[in-house]
Amino acid sequence: MSDDMLKLYELAGADEAVRFSPHCWKTRMALAHKGLEAERIPFHFTDKDVIAFSGQGLVPVLVDGETVVHDSWQIATYLEERFPTPTLFGGDTGRAVARFVNAWADGTLGPVIARVIALDIHSRIAAKDQHYFRETREKRFGMSLEAFAAEPGTHVAALRQALAPLRFTLRQQPFLCGEAPAYADFSVFGMMMWARCISPIELLEQDDPVFAWRERLLDAHDGLARNAPRVA
Amino acid sequence: MSDDMLKLYELAGADEAVRFSPHCWKTRMALAHKGLEAERIPFHFTDKDVIAFSGQGLVPVLVDGETVVHDSWQIATYLEERFPTPTLFGGDTGRAVARFVNAWADGTLGPVIARVIALDIHSRIAAKDQHYFRETREKRFGMSLEAFAAEPGTHVAALRQALAPLRFTLRQQPFLCGEAPAYADFSVFGMMMWARCISPIELLEQDDPVFAWRERLLDAHDGLARNAPRVA
Repeated sequence: MSDDMLKLYELAGADEAVRFSPHCWKTRMALAHKGLEAERIPFHFTDKDVIAFSGQGLVPVLVDGETVVHDSWQIATYLEERFPTPTLFGGDTGRAVARFVNAWADGTLGPVIARVIALDIHSRIAAKDQHYFRETREKRFGMSLEAFAAEPGTHVAALRQALAPLRFTLRQQPFLCGEAPAYADFSVFGMMMWARCISPIELLEQDDPVFAWRERLLDAHDGLARNAPRVA
Repeated sequence: MSDDMLKLYELAGADEAVRFSPHCWKTRMALAHKGLEAERIPFHFTDKDVIAFSGQGLVPVLVDGETVVHDSWQIATYLEERFPTPTLFGGDTGRAVARFVNAWADGTLGPVIARVIALDIHSRIAAKDQHYFRETREKRFGMSLEAFAAEPGTHVAALRQALAPLRFTLRQQPFLCGEAPAYADFSVFGMMMWARCISPIELLEQDDPVFAWRERLLDAHDGLARNAPRVA
């Protein structure tokens, strides 16, 4: 492994092959989009010391030589500047609007998917992470994990409803970004990979245009996402 | 009025100066963005014969010489092709992602705002339109207008919550499209103008970044939107 290879710190489950963070998936798809390889280093929620050099405690963290970038959005804009083609955003306006899509994915889809998979996450992360995960999430959600994740069917239904604007868009065009996928697609797809990697629960119905879109992205880059390890 | 001037058919209230359709506002902002003037022709819900030449019964309808375009999204893409600068989309990716924002505005914000202002619309449209409006909307919503619009405060709160991804984005940048507004902004702003023109109910709190964004768009093009006639 050359010292100047990109390094990506990724959230891992108890099985370190399982890399389930939605934000790390955004970065992984962005790297693949640009044809970049990275050394992918597993990180656990409580390994804060491992990435202390980044000045904070969350992944993804990308290391490019002397440059350290954290936060998936910041990483995307860094990659776009450093490796301009193929583009992730299609220009300044595309980047600005992709930021909205990213916020929609994180703020509208994320909390609903969390309710579907929170208990699966808890049961599949390293034992040393379980207390941290429960404590931080119960504080954030204001209730026990079990209460938060009760009635997953209700939350799956809520997710399918929340996906309506994406569904409408995908009836008009194959990808959020048009004829080919780009970062706005990866923002939403990362959320789907989060669930796919850590939970057996299926979020989508097969006749949903969002399902077909997800299939296309699973197949992208020789099945990079489709072949990613999942929990059994 | 020259025969080759653009013509725009716009939904009007009983007071024909009040042009309140969210989709007509998207078109109006798009025209202003491109520095284009249009003859603005009032249309009432039941004036189907007036725009029968467009092959359907909804406004906006844009007439550009021999060319007739209906549907605000189709009009936007038509304008972008016919008058490329200043751009509404910033390229193909920007256009594709703006379509998602437009779908979010229509599908996520629209139905919530409708519940806040449905009775105001009903009371401010021409008498000849009231039966049509009530009948079509009660069929669409599956309940009486009065039931649909009950508890407007609940729906205002739901709208403010639905605006979360826009609010997050506007904490990072002045417009959805970045440093300057473009079509994705107009898609959402059209929804705001719908309520502003036809209802006295204030949708936003003054300390909301969405409020400040709306103020900037109200001021754009010498206050085009701010100075537009509203119901008393």
